[in-house]
Amino acid sequence: MEPSTWRTYLVTQASRSGDRDTVAVVRAALAGGVDAVQLREKGTDARHRYRLGRELRELTADADVPLIVNDRVDIAAAIDADGVHLGQSDLPIDVARDQLGSEAIIGCSTSTTAEAKRAVAEGADYLGVGAVYATDSKDVPEEESGIGPERIRAIASAVDLPIVGIGGIGEGNAAAVIQAGATGVAVISAITAAADPAAATRRLGEVVADAR
Amino acid sequence: MEPSTWRTYLVTQASRSGDRDTVAVVRAALAGGVDAVQLREKGTDARHRYRLGRELRELTADADVPLIVNDRVDIAAAIDADGVHLGQSDLPIDVARDQLGSEAIIGCSTSTTAEAKRAVAEGADYLGVGAVYATDSKDVPEEESGIGPERIRAIASAVDLPIVGIGGIGEGNAAAVIQAGATGVAVISAITAAADPAAATRRLGEVVADAR
Repeated sequence: MEPSTWRTYLVTQASRSGDRDTVAVVRAALAGGVDAVQLREKGTDARHRYRLGRELRELTADADVPLIVNDRVDIAAAIDADGVHLGQSDLPIDVARDQLGSEAIIGCSTSTTAEAKRAVAEGADYLGVGAVYATDSKDVPEEESGIGPERIRAIASAVDLPIVGIGGIGEGNAAAVIQAGATGVAVISAITAAADPAAATRRLGEVVADAR
Repeated sequence: MEPSTWRTYLVTQASRSGDRDTVAVVRAALAGGVDAVQLREKGTDARHRYRLGRELRELTADADVPLIVNDRVDIAAAIDADGVHLGQSDLPIDVARDQLGSEAIIGCSTSTTAEAKRAVAEGADYLGVGAVYATDSKDVPEEESGIGPERIRAIASAVDLPIVGIGGIGEGNAAAVIQAGATGVAVISAITAAADPAAATRRLGEVVADAR
């Protein structure tokens, strides 16, 4: 499925999942209709992410849901992921494109209009824009308070690419992010730390669909 | 040049190079006849390593010296490095081989005979064995005191692969490492922190050649 259709995008991080392991969280999110999954797991080693990624590849392939790998082009290629998500200090988009091919989905983290325009010029397929709201799960938030939906609005009117809002988004504020121009929302805790991750995914998808 | 011919192997780490930048250190080491260079720079982001790696690729190609990238198969492919060096928690050797091809030089960090035998079975081209002596530059030393030359001897008699000793090695103790069965020595500080890195490289190469 194309990034423009993504309503909910789960970003995995076991350290933000309480007692649950990432496989259990992803199973639940798939049951709740999540539209895309990103293997993140920052702070864990590559061997771990490779092994976990192979499991997630099976689960997501069975559900026909795209799997994207954070940062590492080599892990994405090794597990036959659908693509990679690159930050501003990761490998350049053109390097990832060379290694993964024209069909790969390449996302890029941006927090300003200038970064967004550059990502478009470099061939990104979608943008992850944030942190929208204050959050402690991103490692390098641009601003302590979050960039807010207004920045989403500015970026959405400057570029013609699907935009996934990220950072502190949940059921209560997702509508504002979509109304500002994002096509979907990427979340960690709103799913991983929910009492019922499948139900939380389903409700979040409904909020996004209603706000579109 | 094949790993079996390597006497001196510089592992780059700007944070251990004082005021010198890594390009200057590599230039000096090449002038001193270093046999291989590894782009390490742990703790820096991928974009930085990619850019630095492209510079080092030019310098090492001009000198006809192999350039190996620590950990990241994608960076190695992106800068057209000669190979990759993998630790026990990095991507598996077979994944790197798939992505880099049969001509790539793949090294593996090992500190036990069991790890060394597994690396041979998985198709490694050389072993980095250490930490031989106590050092503060390795991130996860197996033993505070270093494994010592005796472990080199045990591994060298168990496997038939070039062995590069690493960890706390310098002019004063390199001969013991070679006499125990290593074919060469990998160093950070012995070159990066030397008063004259080119001269230090040259002397270290002579110590290794004499001890073989």
